[in-house]
Amino acid sequence: MNEATTRLYGAVEAGGTKFVCAIGDQEGRILAEARFPTTDPVTTLHNMVDFFRARRGEFGELAAIGVGSFGPIELDRGSDQYGSVLRTPKPGWTGADILGPLLCEIGVPLGFDTDVNAAALAEHRWGAARELDDLVYVTIGTGIGGGALVGGRPVRGLMHPEMGHIFPRRHALDGGFAGVCPFHGDCLEGLAAGPAIIARSGAPLDRLDPDHPQWAIEADYLGQLCANLVLMLSPQRIVLGGGVMNQSQLYAPIRERLVAWLGGYIDRAPFAGGVDAYVVAPGLGGRAGVMGALALAIDAAAPRASPRT
Amino acid sequence: MNEATTRLYGAVEAGGTKFVCAIGDQEGRILAEARFPTTDPVTTLHNMVDFFRARRGEFGELAAIGVGSFGPIELDRGSDQYGSVLRTPKPGWTGADILGPLLCEIGVPLGFDTDVNAAALAEHRWGAARELDDLVYVTIGTGIGGGALVGGRPVRGLMHPEMGHIFPRRHALDGGFAGVCPFHGDCLEGLAAGPAIIARSGAPLDRLDPDHPQWAIEADYLGQLCANLVLMLSPQRIVLGGGVMNQSQLYAPIRERLVAWLGGYIDRAPFAGGVDAYVVAPGLGGRAGVMGALALAIDAAAPRASPRT
Repeated sequence: MNEATTRLYGAVEAGGTKFVCAIGDQEGRILAEARFPTTDPVTTLHNMVDFFRARRGEFGELAAIGVGSFGPIELDRGSDQYGSVLRTPKPGWTGADILGPLLCEIGVPLGFDTDVNAAALAEHRWGAARELDDLVYVTIGTGIGGGALVGGRPVRGLMHPEMGHIFPRRHALDGGFAGVCPFHGDCLEGLAAGPAIIARSGAPLDRLDPDHPQWAIEADYLGQLCANLVLMLSPQRIVLGGGVMNQSQLYAPIRERLVAWLGGYIDRAPFAGGVDAYVVAPGLGGRAGVMGALALAIDAAAPRASPRT
Repeated sequence: MNEATTRLYGAVEAGGTKFVCAIGDQEGRILAEARFPTTDPVTTLHNMVDFFRARRGEFGELAAIGVGSFGPIELDRGSDQYGSVLRTPKPGWTGADILGPLLCEIGVPLGFDTDVNAAALAEHRWGAARELDDLVYVTIGTGIGGGALVGGRPVRGLMHPEMGHIFPRRHALDGGFAGVCPFHGDCLEGLAAGPAIIARSGAPLDRLDPDHPQWAIEADYLGQLCANLVLMLSPQRIVLGGGVMNQSQLYAPIRERLVAWLGGYIDRAPFAGGVDAYVVAPGLGGRAGVMGALALAIDAAAPRASPRT
């Protein structure tokens, strides 16, 4: 018991714009942390390995390292590409092997999942959905991605969810905008992620007037996403995070649009007045990613200790 | 062991147009069966109870009865309404207590889920997705409903999925049709279920020319549903059943539209040539519903024997 409480874990939030590396314990306390920009894979993964190597003297051998990565990624342990980034528009990263350097240089058990599945796990364990086994975490930033827990377990299936690429119905005020997703043009990410907001409106949200139509358009697309989630995944709560959601005035109109899109069909308390507690900000704020990676490490070290995840 | 193999179970497929009641064993063999139309709740539920009462002499006490019901239904055992139909456009059925009469009159353990979650379970156990723990079953008939297994367990969460009511993008040839869903007008069910096909085209599919635009419209909406499922739930297989899918020439264009909607983003074998094995007909045909109810009964009698469901 004493040994278990003093075990330490590594965590890597492998994001599309920055990597966060950390060392923490099983209560979710972070004891060391570094962050650096996501540049080319060689430099970035070298920095990641260096972080853990440099702290060996201070913290000793880690019990495991968890990596929550931007996607798409290969989660199938039976695949040659396990641990790698799949086809991505991010220059240079298609095929990048994220786990390989950790395995060779650090050599401890590894946990691996999407950054958003990891964030969902962290919000479930320590954040805004502690009592709930069925939840969705969506980040709206430079891209849009969603992770989900069903029965307390991350959803993977064929690959992993890629919720940013559904096609919402176009908003009446948004007919002329082509969208910016390199794969799909006007999918959700192409219409509602940060780069889409700037391409459509000429500026990020925090520099737009409160009555700029961009606000209504954004809330409608994200409300529609939430409605689709209710209808397809039936989560007990939806957590919306990411840079765009730092504009916290968006939560209220997103909730309104969610209720409007459902049209009275889902006869559940959140849609009859309790929606403020249904669509929420991350309890861990911007820490959900790295805390999720820590949760993946804890589960990788002792999978039987956490049967539901 | 001998006792276990001779146990018998009751099954009720509580559909919106017909009820199927059956008695079967744990290998999925059906030993007795009756079907009758779904009229008013009093008559229909009386017929259901009568079926089991009349066969007590022949089959003895059942180990459990499973009910797979049209929805929306209350699945929360902590609710006063557990076992009842929730707000539904089906006349007379809002609030109807389906499990109550079985509990009072037959008094064996009861399993309860949506008809489509039950069908997904049956396809997983005995049908078209036997080796797969993550799958979706969708029925396209007088309505559209979907059930899902994640990690082998039916998805419930806040209520249960109601996939028929997502809003697909409108097809270019379908701009003038208002849709027929009483809640939403032109949601998926309002655009692509049997009554929508008849309202738009004047006849069911089997009476339309092969070059009627209805076929392309239908395939596009169902392909879009499949794409949304891939992006949100990431199933390993999608099973499409129901009366509309008896027109089996629909599967090929639905698969084509699925691949088109994904736009090359999901780098997985089914979307690079293997899609025929990804979107499939039910292995159990029209039997998925009643077999699913049987599976619910088996699990209700011995929940610990099937930990994953």
